[in-house]
Amino acid sequence: MSGILFGVGVGPGDPELLTVKAWRLISGASTIAYLCANGGQSTALEIVRPFLPDAYKSIAIDMPMRVERQPAQAAYDEGSNRIAKDLDEGRDVVFLCEGDPLFYGSFKFVSERLIQKYDVVVVPGITSISAATAELRQPLVERDETLKVLPATMSAEKLKSELATASAAAIIKVGRHIDKVKAVLSELNLLDQATAIEHATRPTQIIRPLNEIASPTLPYFTTIIVRRK
Amino acid sequence: MSGILFGVGVGPGDPELLTVKAWRLISGASTIAYLCANGGQSTALEIVRPFLPDAYKSIAIDMPMRVERQPAQAAYDEGSNRIAKDLDEGRDVVFLCEGDPLFYGSFKFVSERLIQKYDVVVVPGITSISAATAELRQPLVERDETLKVLPATMSAEKLKSELATASAAAIIKVGRHIDKVKAVLSELNLLDQATAIEHATRPTQIIRPLNEIASPTLPYFTTIIVRRK
Repeated sequence: MSGILFGVGVGPGDPELLTVKAWRLISGASTIAYLCANGGQSTALEIVRPFLPDAYKSIAIDMPMRVERQPAQAAYDEGSNRIAKDLDEGRDVVFLCEGDPLFYGSFKFVSERLIQKYDVVVVPGITSISAATAELRQPLVERDETLKVLPATMSAEKLKSELATASAAAIIKVGRHIDKVKAVLSELNLLDQATAIEHATRPTQIIRPLNEIASPTLPYFTTIIVRRK
Repeated sequence: MSGILFGVGVGPGDPELLTVKAWRLISGASTIAYLCANGGQSTALEIVRPFLPDAYKSIAIDMPMRVERQPAQAAYDEGSNRIAKDLDEGRDVVFLCEGDPLFYGSFKFVSERLIQKYDVVVVPGITSISAATAELRQPLVERDETLKVLPATMSAEKLKSELATASAAAIIKVGRHIDKVKAVLSELNLLDQATAIEHATRPTQIIRPLNEIASPTLPYFTTIIVRRK
């Protein structure tokens, strides 16, 4: 019997925002896999640290942080092969995913390499959008409203046309695109209705009205919540 | 010292999809509030039943299931007054919310009546969209894609224009709007790329390709996931 690959969402940062199911799987895991950057830290592993078992085998997949896709694909190949080895020997593998595994997550790059041959179970996680909204304590969407999740990497033109017809929006992957986002929101008279939440529920969390931010970049893990008044 | 009002998301149905924070607050609660329909059951209370404390005070807010808004608003007034009484006496109140409290949730109707006077803390929950996606084991959105959350109650024309520019969409509140949704998806050649998930992660869960569904209504808690190939 092969082992099962569990893609487990660990939520936005607060360890208490893991699900009970994620806690059960992680605390009882024999093999835990995760991505790490350039031989360094894994945010997902840091989030679950309070719940790690005393002893477990690590499969750390070192992701080259480069623009080209080929080195990343090679890293996923190599990592998936290491995971497959454990599955072949009948051991389950818990793969840690920041936020939710299938919501802009990297889990697909592992699961698409293994799902034909092995059982895959996905445990959803709290997204940064739900976390940011909870911190703001204001409804994100209600009744018949439309929510759009818009990566800030898209063109100003497309961002503008999508925002023009949204009741509410979450703009993600903000980083160095902050000026473009501010310009578009300003054109639509929505700048005063936007709030930036950096690192929601982490110790480094910062919440600011977008119109008070002057810096040319924000962390990649910034969510801008826009809610039409 | 007044008590704190906790708006706690209990997720889509599987009790293990509660967060650790929700579990901690619910299992230690002295007062638990929730909505129920016409004197009957509360889905949120059913979800958390494995985690309820041995003894607690219930504040059941009976919602009249009628089209007019006034009776519902009167029920929220009355329920909020009962919650305020506990908060005034220094007791925390845990208000149970299906899914995520601020994502198409009813918690706003309670919190807007109490947030000026009392501390309110929101604990995010797993949405039915994350749950449905996890059951499908396919990515919902990745890289620079746009996600739209579209209530099926909107007009066919608006639904069509929004779907035309979405990489992926979650159509919620399906119920008796199924034929309209199918017609629009068909016009856009997206019908074959849509899957209906009824009651995600509950014992009554059903997953079907949308093009295999002939019935004129689906449960209200059906999510249709559309992902452009």
